[in-house]
Amino acid sequence: MILCQNVAELKNLVATFKQNGKSIGLVPTMGALHEGHASLIKAAHAENDITIVSVFVNPTQFGPNEDYAAYPRTLEKDCTVAENAGADVVFAPKKEDLYPNKDMTWVEVTGDITKVLCGRTRPIHFRGVTTVITKLFNLTMPNRAYFGLKDAQQTQVLQRMVDDLFFNVNLRIMPIVREADGLAKSSRNVYLSPEEKKAALILSKSLKHAQDLFLHGERNSAKIVDAVTQMIKSEPLSDIDYVEMYKLPGLLPVDEVISGKVLLALAVKFGTTRLIDNVILEDK
Amino acid sequence: MILCQNVAELKNLVATFKQNGKSIGLVPTMGALHEGHASLIKAAHAENDITIVSVFVNPTQFGPNEDYAAYPRTLEKDCTVAENAGADVVFAPKKEDLYPNKDMTWVEVTGDITKVLCGRTRPIHFRGVTTVITKLFNLTMPNRAYFGLKDAQQTQVLQRMVDDLFFNVNLRIMPIVREADGLAKSSRNVYLSPEEKKAALILSKSLKHAQDLFLHGERNSAKIVDAVTQMIKSEPLSDIDYVEMYKLPGLLPVDEVISGKVLLALAVKFGTTRLIDNVILEDK
Repeated sequence: MILCQNVAELKNLVATFKQNGKSIGLVPTMGALHEGHASLIKAAHAENDITIVSVFVNPTQFGPNEDYAAYPRTLEKDCTVAENAGADVVFAPKKEDLYPNKDMTWVEVTGDITKVLCGRTRPIHFRGVTTVITKLFNLTMPNRAYFGLKDAQQTQVLQRMVDDLFFNVNLRIMPIVREADGLAKSSRNVYLSPEEKKAALILSKSLKHAQDLFLHGERNSAKIVDAVTQMIKSEPLSDIDYVEMYKLPGLLPVDEVISGKVLLALAVKFGTTRLIDNVILEDK
Repeated sequence: MILCQNVAELKNLVATFKQNGKSIGLVPTMGALHEGHASLIKAAHAENDITIVSVFVNPTQFGPNEDYAAYPRTLEKDCTVAENAGADVVFAPKKEDLYPNKDMTWVEVTGDITKVLCGRTRPIHFRGVTTVITKLFNLTMPNRAYFGLKDAQQTQVLQRMVDDLFFNVNLRIMPIVREADGLAKSSRNVYLSPEEKKAALILSKSLKHAQDLFLHGERNSAKIVDAVTQMIKSEPLSDIDYVEMYKLPGLLPVDEVISGKVLLALAVKFGTTRLIDNVILEDK
């Protein structure tokens, strides 16, 4: 596996792959790789000749009071995880490599899709995501790019960007990977104290409860959202940012009676750590 | 030559060109093709296997009080001009093809580079340009894209976008093409009355005067700008928007004493028609 830490070298690698007719799978990450990321890398490895994993803590998607400085940086371990999962290249550029100019070129998806859910409390977040993913798409020219469904809103925003700007990239959205106890894998789980980690189990439990309600025929969107909200509130260490439901695709407002496919998403703080999780409910 | 009027067909064409290892030159235009455009198409034809000319009056680069509705639309004639200059494909999509969603994805270059010169009176113009060019780059996957130096600020903004977002496209900037009497070719020249067209000759004359001053050793930036301004003001039908000088590349503020390469650019109204023109001054 090649560890590539500058743009010029990456361009050369990608040019060679393309000349040789290789298909490329891109797995964009911020490092601190866990089994969730590994599942994306394995999927990319299975579907493409070459798998490129980018490791870059993207400054432009963090707000001024967020955890950019504290975000875990574990490149050496990340390379091991990536290689074991089948990566051919880890691309780990420096900040100045991806942001060469003080005056930025931004790529921004507008409309409610970036304003609801996480967009409400993180107003610049998705602009940072779409900007850095555009750079990574242009640098790695992937046939397919892999994202986890845990960042459900991100996947919707990126699909909108790909559609609007006609990127020739197939977005592959992979299922959430969970701990045995149900906690969704996240690089931010390392911030949790043992008590908070235990308390955070209420998230997956409440989403499982929502699924059960849905399976047993409940179709009233407010009732399901309310049941999840009350269950999370029963956990004293929880501090809810949102529990909301939106239609898929596109995150449009949900009707009173659920039909088709909806996203039930939540963001909840435990201490200073903000976790997100979600489930998709769909009539089959 | 192929006239292609929808996105799906263009994607198929481009995929075939790419599979066959063809190099692609893109000439993005808003139609109403004149000899300036023809010179770009000829250059693309000389340097690439395939030349694609896009003809699209891009709504997002026009302000609410600008000439979007009135802009000349002459597709049939444009196809003839394009074919005679060596185009292989004319891509003329509809508005809904390039803007499929109400909530837009924007590509925007920030900073003074988009705020000076035309950016001052046309605040949304360059955001529209960079957005549509991103779409066209992703759709046509060109090796080279051709732009006229008449839109000097546009070429600087697009180069910044290409650098920041790592588009794998070589921007080829071609010289201004002029009428025999010196008037820069422009699709908007058709708006001019015979009197205005005659009056507009002061633009190229004043730029020629600036070149002469520079050639004879004048290096004071304010003096050159002032000489051009006074000369244009001597023409009663002229109404100056700006006469300004900026460093190249990047349109940084110019020093009192000119060194290196500078752009002397002007925008002047004759009646309701706003014309732009420029010259580059450089020590050789």
